[in-house]
Amino acid sequence: MELYLIRHGIAQERGLDIKDEQRSLTKEGRQKTEKVAQKIVKLGLQFDLIVTSPLVRARQTAEILIAEKLSSQLEESSHLAPDGNISSWLINWLEPRNYSQNTQLALVGHEPNLSIWAETLLWGTEILSSESRSRELSEVKAGLVLKKAGMIGIKLPEAGSPLGRSQMFWLTPPKYLL
Amino acid sequence: MELYLIRHGIAQERGLDIKDEQRSLTKEGRQKTEKVAQKIVKLGLQFDLIVTSPLVRARQTAEILIAEKLSSQLEESSHLAPDGNISSWLINWLEPRNYSQNTQLALVGHEPNLSIWAETLLWGTEILSSESRSRELSEVKAGLVLKKAGMIGIKLPEAGSPLGRSQMFWLTPPKYLL
Repeated sequence: MELYLIRHGIAQERGLDIKDEQRSLTKEGRQKTEKVAQKIVKLGLQFDLIVTSPLVRARQTAEILIAEKLSSQLEESSHLAPDGNISSWLINWLEPRNYSQNTQLALVGHEPNLSIWAETLLWGTEILSSESRSRELSEVKAGLVLKKAGMIGIKLPEAGSPLGRSQMFWLTPPKYLL
Repeated sequence: MELYLIRHGIAQERGLDIKDEQRSLTKEGRQKTEKVAQKIVKLGLQFDLIVTSPLVRARQTAEILIAEKLSSQLEESSHLAPDGNISSWLINWLEPRNYSQNTQLALVGHEPNLSIWAETLLWGTEILSSESRSRELSEVKAGLVLKKAGMIGIKLPEAGSPLGRSQMFWLTPPKYLL
């Protein structure tokens, strides 16, 4: 199975007059996301399902992917909200669905969550947590840079837990898809 | 500073009649590498220097990048050969050169070396070695998939050791550059 982790496009700035979950894509964010979606279609990708965080900026990003015909299926999941976590998503969302090996899922969400999900899939939870601790000590940034409207492609293993056993085959900033 | 780790293109199969270090790019390997190089130029990239493994298939890949005008400077380094390692390259090759912050270096080499170099730059040597051990136990594959003629883009920190403190902003298979 392949997972495509997609970060929402450029959104309104945080401010006192708007709730974080209500922030919308800006005009630039909308246009850039459309171009990225068109390029992904051109590369030959199709998703069986797009799952999005319920926050407006993610939902709008996912709707653009649908409008550009990257998938016909859209679903919201609170697991993809900023307070969601990958272990819970794997156990409570992915496992019960029993998808076939060749399923291609796109997840639209937020940072730093998506980078952490990717790192956890690739290197496992224990490695990550010990590394996170040493990172705090040395004030080091995260290892992956996922820009707004950028994406990460990950292949899950055919059997067994994907944690620490998945492989990353793609990480791209939007600028290389415009 | 930005490092671009580029894997050599498709080469002749291993065989009794040819030494590993003498294997050449196939016609397909040559054509695909040319297309990838042309696309990278189109994306606006230029390298201040291309450093290549001395093995024929890597050297030929680097010469294609030069022919497509991705750089005017080519150098061979045994650090990039299959028995090279990143710590030695950092200490004995990179540090003494004292490059400026905005230098863009391309390194042409082999797998699994380049993936290991990337993981070591991102997550550090200790994390990697403990993870390698747990991987051996569970027979898990490497976390990064770097195809022939594919590339990884990494940003080194402005000061201090890059080990465990660098960030990956790009990982692409050649098929998304054709």
